[in-house]
Amino acid sequence: MESIKSFYELTTYLQTSNSRKKIAVICANDPNTEYAIARSLEEGIAEFIMIGDSAILRKYPTLKKYPEYVKTIHIENPDEAAREAVKLVREGGADILMKGIINTDNLLHAILDKEKGLLPKGKILTHLSVVQIPTYHKLLFFSDAAVIPRPTLQQRIEMIWYAIKTCHHFGICQPRIALIHFSEKVSAKFQNSLDYVNLVELAEGGEFGDVIIDGPLDVKTACEEASADIKGIVSPINGQADVLIFPNIEAANTFYKSVSLFAKAEMAGLLQGPICPVVLPSRSDSGLSKYYSIAMACLTCK
Amino acid sequence: MESIKSFYELTTYLQTSNSRKKIAVICANDPNTEYAIARSLEEGIAEFIMIGDSAILRKYPTLKKYPEYVKTIHIENPDEAAREAVKLVREGGADILMKGIINTDNLLHAILDKEKGLLPKGKILTHLSVVQIPTYHKLLFFSDAAVIPRPTLQQRIEMIWYAIKTCHHFGICQPRIALIHFSEKVSAKFQNSLDYVNLVELAEGGEFGDVIIDGPLDVKTACEEASADIKGIVSPINGQADVLIFPNIEAANTFYKSVSLFAKAEMAGLLQGPICPVVLPSRSDSGLSKYYSIAMACLTCK
Repeated sequence: MESIKSFYELTTYLQTSNSRKKIAVICANDPNTEYAIARSLEEGIAEFIMIGDSAILRKYPTLKKYPEYVKTIHIENPDEAAREAVKLVREGGADILMKGIINTDNLLHAILDKEKGLLPKGKILTHLSVVQIPTYHKLLFFSDAAVIPRPTLQQRIEMIWYAIKTCHHFGICQPRIALIHFSEKVSAKFQNSLDYVNLVELAEGGEFGDVIIDGPLDVKTACEEASADIKGIVSPINGQADVLIFPNIEAANTFYKSVSLFAKAEMAGLLQGPICPVVLPSRSDSGLSKYYSIAMACLTCK
Repeated sequence: MESIKSFYELTTYLQTSNSRKKIAVICANDPNTEYAIARSLEEGIAEFIMIGDSAILRKYPTLKKYPEYVKTIHIENPDEAAREAVKLVREGGADILMKGIINTDNLLHAILDKEKGLLPKGKILTHLSVVQIPTYHKLLFFSDAAVIPRPTLQQRIEMIWYAIKTCHHFGICQPRIALIHFSEKVSAKFQNSLDYVNLVELAEGGEFGDVIIDGPLDVKTACEEASADIKGIVSPINGQADVLIFPNIEAANTFYKSVSLFAKAEMAGLLQGPICPVVLPSRSDSGLSKYYSIAMACLTCK
């Protein structure tokens, strides 16, 4: 498999692979979610089980064009709808979970339920995004803009594992993972920079398999060869990062918002950790971004 | 005065104002610094006192084209050169300080000297940048990508004051200042979000004069009206921020590197706190960025 370098390549790949995944959507009551579902149906990449108020579902006539690929389960209470969707995944009735307009905390409550939830014991919950920036030559994965504010060393190890596995799904055999900081210096004042030394050593020892991990690096030295050259920095990443692991949620969120607003980037993202991919878009995500997140989920739940 | 909305407007304004500032440059021994100085001489916005190894200065013949605006002081030792430049500013012989290839720590040592330095007692040292992003309709100031890793409430108050004063120099009468976070929610888990509530209250009480301060906001809601609308957020910033105050150095640095690499932004920046503007470029800054920093210094030392 050639590596997938754009969202166009991603959706084309899914169309040709011709295996629709079953997505349970909770409370799909907004135009952007509707767009994402309708687009997925048109492109033939998924089928949907709509769980929520079916009176509201009738607002979206485009979804009726594909009756064989859209089922509805009428549950008015959002918390009950979330629990039903989780149950469906546990019983094998759905491959992917997707949030509509239910409050994120309520959905997480159902996912994190120790007995009836979706997160295996000992697994951490984190968020992995992928961005297509017109001025970068391939897709760029990053973590964590949504769930873990200050990752510990152990959490970073898990974040790296999720990123590696997702890269493999995208056909990237040897992912280049940059550990982001505001400078290239390791300093005892910044715990994350010390953790980065540990992570680089683990990678060099073979812990993560066939990967290139380096840091601390800043975003520019991670993604542009010339910047590293000017600074006299020699990094095996070589300005070709596939993945950016950010020091904290503020830096990751700033990256996400800056490239989407100022560099016209398109975005997709998934919760990592649960037994199935969970599409958890933010309210301000575009319909296209929700569609690409569905595509990312379909690719990675194989 | 109309507000200055681009670096072109900034340098044009300086040319027409016809008052050259005196800039003491320490160890100007690299092509990007040479470019910035030569461009400033050509455009007629400044004159220079070059402090360093004069044998090295001879490498740059363009600088000899303006003998009436370039003086040299031969001091080989970089620490001594830094001390001499600081002394020159204290004695009124220079209006602005600029770093060439001397190590930043060595220059800061001379600036921070309690008896012979440039930082008045009680003043904090912080860094203010300004960025021209092709996809934004005006200049955007931000702080602090270089000096203070985790600003306290008091430090943020000072950072806001420096930003306001600089905005006034740029003709922005009522600066819109966004306090950046990864969400719009205030939470006791994030001290900066609590500080933001204090800062907004101070601003509403008139502490900062004629300004609009709001937060927590993320970069997108601060700089795009539509994003706030989708989220149902009503902010007096209205997607028109002039200034972004970042929660920490990692987020500020990520913003700086992301917009410069992926959105082709041009950048300028100055140290704030010392009795004169200090141009403190990073090694990887372009010649153009160093030139714009000189221009920013010339405008704000009036």
